Amino acid sequence: MTDVKSIEKILEEKRPLIDKIIEKYIPRRFSQDAFEFSCGKPRYKNLGSIYTYVFSKPVWELLDRGGKRWRPVLFLLLAEALGADTKKAQDFVMIPEIVHDGSLIIDDLEDSSLVRRGKPCLHHLFGIDVAVNAGNAMYYMPALVLLKNTAGLDEPRKIKAYEVFMQEMINIHFGQGADIFWHHGWQDEITEEEYLQMCAFKTGTLARMSAKLAAIIAGADDKTIEACGLFAESIGVAFQIQDDILNLVGDPGKFTKDIGEDITEGKRSMMVIHCLKNAPQHDASRLRYILSLKTHDRELIDEAVQILQRSKSVDYAKKRAREILLQAWTVAEPHLKEGAAKEKVRAFAEFLVEREF
Amino acid sequence: MTDVKSIEKILEEKRPLIDKIIEKYIPRRFSQDAFEFSCGKPRYKNLGSIYTYVFSKPVWELLDRGGKRWRPVLFLLLAEALGADTKKAQDFVMIPEIVHDGSLIIDDLEDSSLVRRGKPCLHHLFGIDVAVNAGNAMYYMPALVLLKNTAGLDEPRKIKAYEVFMQEMINIHFGQGADIFWHHGWQDEITEEEYLQMCAFKTGTLARMSAKLAAIIAGADDKTIEACGLFAESIGVAFQIQDDILNLVGDPGKFTKDIGEDITEGKRSMMVIHCLKNAPQHDASRLRYILSLKTHDRELIDEAVQILQRSKSVDYAKKRAREILLQAWTVAEPHLKEGAAKEKVRAFAEFLVEREF
Repeated sequence: MTDVKSIEKILEEKRPLIDKIIEKYIPRRFSQDAFEFSCGKPRYKNLGSIYTYVFSKPVWELLDRGGKRWRPVLFLLLAEALGADTKKAQDFVMIPEIVHDGSLIIDDLEDSSLVRRGKPCLHHLFGIDVAVNAGNAMYYMPALVLLKNTAGLDEPRKIKAYEVFMQEMINIHFGQGADIFWHHGWQDEITEEEYLQMCAFKTGTLARMSAKLAAIIAGADDKTIEACGLFAESIGVAFQIQDDILNLVGDPGKFTKDIGEDITEGKRSMMVIHCLKNAPQHDASRLRYILSLKTHDRELIDEAVQILQRSKSVDYAKKRAREILLQAWTVAEPHLKEGAAKEKVRAFAEFLVEREF
Repeated sequence: MTDVKSIEKILEEKRPLIDKIIEKYIPRRFSQDAFEFSCGKPRYKNLGSIYTYVFSKPVWELLDRGGKRWRPVLFLLLAEALGADTKKAQDFVMIPEIVHDGSLIIDDLEDSSLVRRGKPCLHHLFGIDVAVNAGNAMYYMPALVLLKNTAGLDEPRKIKAYEVFMQEMINIHFGQGADIFWHHGWQDEITEEEYLQMCAFKTGTLARMSAKLAAIIAGADDKTIEACGLFAESIGVAFQIQDDILNLVGDPGKFTKDIGEDITEGKRSMMVIHCLKNAPQHDASRLRYILSLKTHDRELIDEAVQILQRSKSVDYAKKRAREILLQAWTVAEPHLKEGAAKEKVRAFAEFLVEREF
């Protein structure tokens, strides 16, 4: 059984370090030094302070609102369990966190969302131009961690790190592309395998990227790199399934997002896919109808949730999330050093799937 | 004197090859093979055909509308003048072209533009979500050319190529950030040096990236890589200045953009910066006033152009563009092999600054 309290404590303890590292790359005030650190020596003029307004403010507005920082923590725990020098590796926490936050800015614009972490989405607060440019910059600025080579990688491992970063950044856009395609209703029925692949790209990619980077820094062989990548990808997928579950049946006092929002959005989650395939005809039709309404009506949302419960789709999703995680753990586990760090990784993965917030 | 006709002929001749190479990476129809080529073997499911709708269609809609493809051609000419195996290097043309086209999609959204290359901007045609995701994917998909290593680079050159790509992709967002900042009127007066730095990042970066890549492929030393990068960056800057000039005093029958659009937008071009600094008080005030109106009134736009002509700001900008280019050519020229290719590079650079369309 996961000791939730101890995991929460780890998240809380690591947060100041993570934010301090991010500040090294995206300071709260952009100076001329920060400009040169990011861009090299300018040919004509150092434009330093401009970026306080167009980068620092949007980035820190979002980061200061909250977020679990679980991707950086997973990276640190895995790096430790793989025997990496975590002090030398630590700047890499910037990569999954900043790309993730950048993707929230972009997703919110793409989904026409209004609220993020309890406040207006960044494109409403800063304008579309500043928000999109900041979000996009956040897809590339993490590459600075690689370019500065604070982990002291040798040439072959440097190449691997660059390649993992770029390949996963490609894949993440394929994940988002599939999500958008389905969101538009351009495909009638989505299979569970298709949904899982989208999650693997959209939510799994960043975890996978950082796990692979941790393994590369630790000097692991290709098999270990792959196994860790698969494990972390599975954590991402299982995390997403749990997010979908909490979105429907979570405790409104604990879960930070709006309960039932996914019904309003008409999202084809694993539960919906399972229900449409397995529920009696009239339940499936009714669910399909409610999802098509994009409704905010509480009674209709509750009815949809009841249908999903009745078809045991929520239980099924929970079971699948656990299976996916367990299977991946079986592959990754032999590659991790025995000890406290390994135990923390296992507990942390379990926490992400069993969490209630 | 540049032989404009011969340069136009080169652009025309190379176009089919360039488009064929791009199709290799972003096919007009996405198959399962194309999916695996881009993302590797999927864990759950190959989502191939989805990407015909969310990537291929927007990308080719924009490419088929036109564009000069001058960045790929500059790359090919430079690679040849540096003694690279152009056949092996040719896939790299995809990089500056696709990143450039991606940036047009994103810029149009950020600027709330309506028309691009004579037709509705992509976010109006495909929706913000598809357009933004395609545009962003176009910032990363070109990395596939590097990952596939079709140029057969060895490890040290591979590292250099990855680093040039990532650093310039960071810089381009700094360029766009400055442009946005000034667009909002968040800075009272902009100096010429500041404007040039923004151009160096926003327009110069892609030319610089591809010139450096050409030099890396050719096995050039660091000094040559830098000199070629500087030269190409200067071409980009001079190209931008000429674009600004044509926007004001171009021949409407030849120039493909709306004449006077920059006055409507209130753009602080090099000419405006020069005029505000050097024109008599009443002219400068009047220009500042017209620029603040965001006007479509033909008479007011013409008046602004007359003020800019009177202060000799148009002549000045033309002179500066030529100086910047000549200075950079002096640095790069000794690094290029004597012969027809070198002469073409020189003529091509001149063409980009002297062109009337």
